[in-house]
Amino acid sequence: MSLTSFVKWPRYEEYKEMFKEHFIMEKRDDGVLLVRMHTKGGPQLWSMELHRAIWQMWRTVGSDSEIELVIFMGTGNQWICDFEPESWAPEQTEPEYTRYEHMFIDGRRMLISMIKDVEVPTIGILSGSGGHSELALMCDICLMAEDAKISDPHFFYDMVPGDGIHSCFIELMGIRRAAYAMLTNQMLTAQQCLEFGMINEVVPRDRMVARAYEIADFIMKRHRTIRRLTAQAIRRPWKQRIVDDLDMTFGTEMFGDFCKNVEHSNISARDLYFGSGEHAFHSMERAKQLDDEGKKSEKSSSDKK
Amino acid sequence: MSLTSFVKWPRYEEYKEMFKEHFIMEKRDDGVLLVRMHTKGGPQLWSMELHRAIWQMWRTVGSDSEIELVIFMGTGNQWICDFEPESWAPEQTEPEYTRYEHMFIDGRRMLISMIKDVEVPTIGILSGSGGHSELALMCDICLMAEDAKISDPHFFYDMVPGDGIHSCFIELMGIRRAAYAMLTNQMLTAQQCLEFGMINEVVPRDRMVARAYEIADFIMKRHRTIRRLTAQAIRRPWKQRIVDDLDMTFGTEMFGDFCKNVEHSNISARDLYFGSGEHAFHSMERAKQLDDEGKKSEKSSSDKK
Amino acid sequence: MSLTSFVKWPRYEEYKEMFKEHFIMEKRDDGVLLVRMHTKGGPQLWSMELHRAIWQMWRTVGSDSEIELVIFMGTGNQWICDFEPESWAPEQTEPEYTRYEHMFIDGRRMLISMIKDVEVPTIGILSGSGGHSELALMCDICLMAEDAKISDPHFFYDMVPGDGIHSCFIELMGIRRAAYAMLTNQMLTAQQCLEFGMINEVVPRDRMVARAYEIADFIMKRHRTIRRLTAQAIRRPWKQRIVDDLDMTFGTEMFGDFCKNVEHSNISARDLYFGSGEHAFHSMERAKQLDDEGKKSEKSSSDKK
Amino acid sequence: MSLTSFVKWPRYEEYKEMFKEHFIMEKRDDGVLLVRMHTKGGPQLWSMELHRAIWQMWRTVGSDSEIELVIFMGTGNQWICDFEPESWAPEQTEPEYTRYEHMFIDGRRMLISMIKDVEVPTIGILSGSGGHSELALMCDICLMAEDAKISDPHFFYDMVPGDGIHSCFIELMGIRRAAYAMLTNQMLTAQQCLEFGMINEVVPRDRMVARAYEIADFIMKRHRTIRRLTAQAIRRPWKQRIVDDLDMTFGTEMFGDFCKNVEHSNISARDLYFGSGEHAFHSMERAKQLDDEGKKSEKSSSDKK
Amino acid sequence: MSLTSFVKWPRYEEYKEMFKEHFIMEKRDDGVLLVRMHTKGGPQLWSMELHRAIWQMWRTVGSDSEIELVIFMGTGNQWICDFEPESWAPEQTEPEYTRYEHMFIDGRRMLISMIKDVEVPTIGILSGSGGHSELALMCDICLMAEDAKISDPHFFYDMVPGDGIHSCFIELMGIRRAAYAMLTNQMLTAQQCLEFGMINEVVPRDRMVARAYEIADFIMKRHRTIRRLTAQAIRRPWKQRIVDDLDMTFGTEMFGDFCKNVEHSNISARDLYFGSGEHAFHSMERAKQLDDEGKKSEKSSSDKK
Amino acid sequence: MSLTSFVKWPRYEEYKEMFKEHFIMEKRDDGVLLVRMHTKGGPQLWSMELHRAIWQMWRTVGSDSEIELVIFMGTGNQWICDFEPESWAPEQTEPEYTRYEHMFIDGRRMLISMIKDVEVPTIGILSGSGGHSELALMCDICLMAEDAKISDPHFFYDMVPGDGIHSCFIELMGIRRAAYAMLTNQMLTAQQCLEFGMINEVVPRDRMVARAYEIADFIMKRHRTIRRLTAQAIRRPWKQRIVDDLDMTFGTEMFGDFCKNVEHSNISARDLYFGSGEHAFHSMERAKQLDDEGKKSEKSSSDKK
Repeated sequence: MSLTSFVKWPRYEEYKEMFKEHFIMEKRDDGVLLVRMHTKGGPQLWSMELHRAIWQMWRTVGSDSEIELVIFMGTGNQWICDFEPESWAPEQTEPEYTRYEHMFIDGRRMLISMIKDVEVPTIGILSGSGGHSELALMCDICLMAEDAKISDPHFFYDMVPGDGIHSCFIELMGIRRAAYAMLTNQMLTAQQCLEFGMINEVVPRDRMVARAYEIADFIMKRHRTIRRLTAQAIRRPWKQRIVDDLDMTFGTEMFGDFCKNVEHSNISARDLYFGSGEHAFHSMERAKQLDDEGKKSEKSSSDKK
Repeated sequence: MSLTSFVKWPRYEEYKEMFKEHFIMEKRDDGVLLVRMHTKGGPQLWSMELHRAIWQMWRTVGSDSEIELVIFMGTGNQWICDFEPESWAPEQTEPEYTRYEHMFIDGRRMLISMIKDVEVPTIGILSGSGGHSELALMCDICLMAEDAKISDPHFFYDMVPGDGIHSCFIELMGIRRAAYAMLTNQMLTAQQCLEFGMINEVVPRDRMVARAYEIADFIMKRHRTIRRLTAQAIRRPWKQRIVDDLDMTFGTEMFGDFCKNVEHSNISARDLYFGSGEHAFHSMERAKQLDDEGKKSEKSSSDKK
Repeated sequence: MSLTSFVKWPRYEEYKEMFKEHFIMEKRDDGVLLVRMHTKGGPQLWSMELHRAIWQMWRTVGSDSEIELVIFMGTGNQWICDFEPESWAPEQTEPEYTRYEHMFIDGRRMLISMIKDVEVPTIGILSGSGGHSELALMCDICLMAEDAKISDPHFFYDMVPGDGIHSCFIELMGIRRAAYAMLTNQMLTAQQCLEFGMINEVVPRDRMVARAYEIADFIMKRHRTIRRLTAQAIRRPWKQRIVDDLDMTFGTEMFGDFCKNVEHSNISARDLYFGSGEHAFHSMERAKQLDDEGKKSEKSSSDKK
Repeated sequence: MSLTSFVKWPRYEEYKEMFKEHFIMEKRDDGVLLVRMHTKGGPQLWSMELHRAIWQMWRTVGSDSEIELVIFMGTGNQWICDFEPESWAPEQTEPEYTRYEHMFIDGRRMLISMIKDVEVPTIGILSGSGGHSELALMCDICLMAEDAKISDPHFFYDMVPGDGIHSCFIELMGIRRAAYAMLTNQMLTAQQCLEFGMINEVVPRDRMVARAYEIADFIMKRHRTIRRLTAQAIRRPWKQRIVDDLDMTFGTEMFGDFCKNVEHSNISARDLYFGSGEHAFHSMERAKQLDDEGKKSEKSSSDKK
Repeated sequence: MSLTSFVKWPRYEEYKEMFKEHFIMEKRDDGVLLVRMHTKGGPQLWSMELHRAIWQMWRTVGSDSEIELVIFMGTGNQWICDFEPESWAPEQTEPEYTRYEHMFIDGRRMLISMIKDVEVPTIGILSGSGGHSELALMCDICLMAEDAKISDPHFFYDMVPGDGIHSCFIELMGIRRAAYAMLTNQMLTAQQCLEFGMINEVVPRDRMVARAYEIADFIMKRHRTIRRLTAQAIRRPWKQRIVDDLDMTFGTEMFGDFCKNVEHSNISARDLYFGSGEHAFHSMERAKQLDDEGKKSEKSSSDKK
Repeated sequence: MSLTSFVKWPRYEEYKEMFKEHFIMEKRDDGVLLVRMHTKGGPQLWSMELHRAIWQMWRTVGSDSEIELVIFMGTGNQWICDFEPESWAPEQTEPEYTRYEHMFIDGRRMLISMIKDVEVPTIGILSGSGGHSELALMCDICLMAEDAKISDPHFFYDMVPGDGIHSCFIELMGIRRAAYAMLTNQMLTAQQCLEFGMINEVVPRDRMVARAYEIADFIMKRHRTIRRLTAQAIRRPWKQRIVDDLDMTFGTEMFGDFCKNVEHSNISARDLYFGSGEHAFHSMERAKQLDDEGKKSEKSSSDKK
């Protein structure tokens, strides 16, 4: 008998409960886990709490040796659209702390933990339109709802694209198309994403989960160790990509946020993805005010004379 | 006069004879060499002997300064389909030795010698359906028979894709499409390969050799040194790729082979590429038996209680 | 007050004048600069003087903090087609000096200064057919005239493709397509370039500048610092690419030039891009003569016995 | 008020308890955490349980935003010396499962989580002699007890050095010294480690903790965000190293374990580091027996005729 | 005769004059240029003007084909010690603009232009104590005054080490020693620098220039093209290093500056390098005030309850 | 029984004979092979024949599965000192062919085949003074005779250091020391080599072979597969290095050879390593003549007015 015991670690039943406000989880007996983001049962809103919960989920799930494959998706026809202003209020009162603790750390960890902390194959379902598509695009396999559209909206919102969507776009589309997409906030339909090699399949909304399970079933027919070693062998390009351009580019995005004084908490992208794109902020007034402030930092006062 | 002489090295007539059981070689006066794999005059079977002969051929041909361009192809409408069971019998009796000596060494050298030991341009003709498409895909130019289909069948056969097909798929299709193709044993038609940028031209079966010679003729019009320096300049990405992900990933594939206890010698992929895919093994009984054995190593016995 | 003053540096009005023989420049009040190559008001001829002026321009413009975005294009429907023989005459009389000073240095600097010396976004308009397409392809965004065709003609002219077009082709098309395009002098139409992910938009000739300004307008709506940090974040792959394969590959191209004894000054590619491709040299006689000379260096005299 | 709440995550008091069988933790009010490995209060034995607990600890501690700096050390004058045979017994009964689940996964995660899951500076104290020195060497700063000696004993024990000690040795000593050290099981004294740039300071045993705290005190005088961003900036080489050579090299080590049939559970290195090196196994008889078995897999039976 | 002329570019006599407030230049007939930083004839003070002049100098000198080798040094026994507060005053009134325009741009360009814009060999003389040692350490050859001491003082001043000194330290000392040096503001004497492989020779103060000329003389005996091609071949590691970790790490340093609210203009490092290190700021009062301000951003106000 | 047979490949007795003019080989029963370069029984002269024989040897030995470890050394107290002028005469009559066929190809292959074609551990004995020390330095372990001195003499001889010695110096000493060593033709004693981490042990001349065998004996005690997998794991940095900077840098060295018109066949380095360094050429007259010729290509004739 061993002298010491294994450290007790949360099991499925426990963490399913821990994360229930952010994810609805369903685990099959064979270890296939479906994780669906939500907020109050409806489409996920971008809150500090969800932002943090994502890496906590990947880290927890990735540490559970009974999970054999993860399917990750969202609720409804939107992906990450609106920031929840109340949740992000500290960005206005404590920008330094918030940008470090809730953006730089949580923002990088969301991806680092998904790529580095998980040994099993992952299937992302880009179930809706919006930003932060890397949450599904960095999965080993990626399906996309036929009516979804994605973009990297950073530049459009006066932010440096540096939080990992850029890593995805460059890795998957190549720098030519990625640079253009980022500089012009290009809306990419599911069909375009397929043509550009960004996703594997376009699926009708009502077939998304079923199709993911079909693929999971094929994968699960293989030997456990083979499935997992294979996932590591094919995830190598993502590991290299993330080490190459995530940490410090994210820091540079944050530098830009201070220069321009951007407030994520005012971003409402619903109209961008579903409407005319005219009303991209919760409060246009506040956006205008920040914009005017920002103009001051573009040139030196001595230049403006 | 020099004090010493050049080491005598095999010349075309000699090595054509040396390799005749595995390759039919035709050399034009201008140094263009056509190398066609075969077994007993018919389509090549995957034997230990051919496996080893491939690197021996590249190393020998690549060391002959009278060869100016190599065209590499197979016989018939299959590429690498079936393992020859008698040849690979030692895998069952001496798995440790066989997996090191005949898989790890010969398998890596096949590609290393093709990329590193050859100074002249190469044209691959993917003349048939099957696995090990990297033997043609890693040539500088690659043509594909219009009726051929390829896949990386490793995962399907409960093996980690780590022998270099994976390097090719990732380099040529990008990680998004490559990961999916490997995890689902996706059958890629010549037309799809063209669209995904994996090959340069789809050619009718009866035009394959003629078309390769047309391209060779264009290349051969250039100055010898220019042709060869150019080949080195454009082979750089392959050199980087092979150093990055071949050696140790191959070792990891072999690790997987022990965990699952896979026997390559039982693989018969003909039905996979040409039929229903139902009969992927020489002996389904043996396959089933190994599978049952393998299940035991998926979980710890204490977990199974 | 500071103890020292800033070094006086050329301003727009000054350098517009300095460069007027090679570029027609137009600067908008918001800092958007249009740079159009020309020779005597017509399409640019490839002279030593223009070759050098290109990096001098990028270095100068890139050092001016009042420039906020650069649009780069050519005059007429040709890109870089003909060498100006009188300008390149020293290549025949002083090949060692010329190949170092005017090729190795200026040729690399053209690209290094465009990628490394410029902080702002760049838009390239591939306004005509010809070689040296990397001058536009390495811009952050690239538009292409619908009637333009490009190729990397190095190999066709018995030269090693190593001056940066190769970097572009490999980066944008992948090694499969790039190797083929270089080895066969493949003519790529605007439509093909779009499909292969080499350019962002195919535009009618009379819409080229207008379309570039539209994109510039979108970009210029963003905060100055954000625009510039973004340009640096997305230019990373180009910086890596250039460090990886430009310097020493260029040196290898020059090595090849000596081995074959190629004269750039005799190259007239107009017929290649606009005609039958039969008359690719200013003087076919001279080309033939060099070719005959070059044959001597292909084999050792002892081999020829 | 936000719509959702933050996921409840273990806090210091809780995880100090969780990990108490493996680590003695002391947290200062300023967030400096001392983590000391132990087994039953004495020097740590290498058990499956500790092996796993290490990454669980880094992952847990790294996820706690109240921890500001970690000091990591062992108990007594040995580092990792002996395997606990009872704990590793499954290696004999279930080698496939054990080598994947307890070696490949836990072994890589130990390092991945230390480098990737932790945002704060780390100080390693190599408090004793033995293997697995990478557990301290990969910390940002590394002190070493003046009487300690380290080596990478893999090769000595007929194993491929691929579990991360090799990454450390190569990164810190350069490949010349590292290859020699691995191939000869070189014993490196603290003084040699200092000269080779492997550690920062040699400290007397009774000054180790005090000195680590002095350094921690200097670091803790800086601003929290600066300390943490700095840690990320300087940890970049480790991140690159680990992505480059850990995953697949580890897989190759495991491949080797099957070829030779090595049993870690029989390794007793105490005599190697503290004695004559004569008795490097718990049971010399078992070692001999495995050795004899292993000889059979060195050559093919047909070669042995 | 060519159709166009070469662009007129500043020649030695002109730029010697242009830069005279920042550099004293002496050019030998053979093209060896000595560049000595100064302020009002005495030791250089770190002003915005000098900061910018450095890259302007490298870019200008590097573009002059008559310069064949550059020796770079400072005046007096200090390297970069004190910021000139008047010059950097805008950092307090316009931090966003200053941190982008005068830090992020000028700070990176100093190094980029030294490494990328110069074709000829460079010899750095680290003639005094202080920060920004990378200005000499990144030269091809580096001599150091025997009484000089260097450190990377960023972390000590509550800044992230990301402006290129870190690139140098990591490249030259390895990450083990570099991380320690940065985290502890380690003072490195000339002798230590020699032992750690950071410099090539320790020279007495009165021999510095003479020794540099001796080395220059040896180099100048070689053929011009060989000297310059050699410089490019050996500068490759620096080019790779700078592309890898300068741009975005610098952005991250600036992010840190906003989080902590650091003011470079208050830094007076003279006491750090020459005295007790007690008075590291021009105004200790202002430093204290910023420090107190900074403390607020370390934790969230809600955490502080 | 297999359908085909293994290709017959040269065995030890055969190739020992094939290579006898260039190498004296001794093979122990356990597969340890000692390879000693020689010319007519005495110290090796640098001939075209030996230059080529080196890669032929590595390729042949590396392909023989009965060789388990290679010790590589020279004869007498010189390493590569003098070129054999008669052998290299074609360099004067056919420089283009010779520089490509005998320098670019053979020169790169010497190293590529040593690193890429060999699976077993290698021990280099730098048994004498001279150039081309990479032939021993790139072995996995390297011993050096206590009276030997090495340098990279390229630059001294007006050549660009690009043939692989530079790869070794940079990899082993770091760029700081390597650049200096190359630019100043620094003579490195065995002791210095040890301190700089370039070699593993300094050994008395009469202990060299015995010591190599001692190390070989330790290594040979390990399992065959483990020895060989270990060699691949630790050779990774060399593989990366060679792919990174050998091919194209070598091409650039050759470019330089044409610019300066250097003749290797005139190089006699014996005096450089053993005497005053005054008589570095076989014929000082010829050297002077080439030097004068070379001066013409340093500047343009128009500049010289």
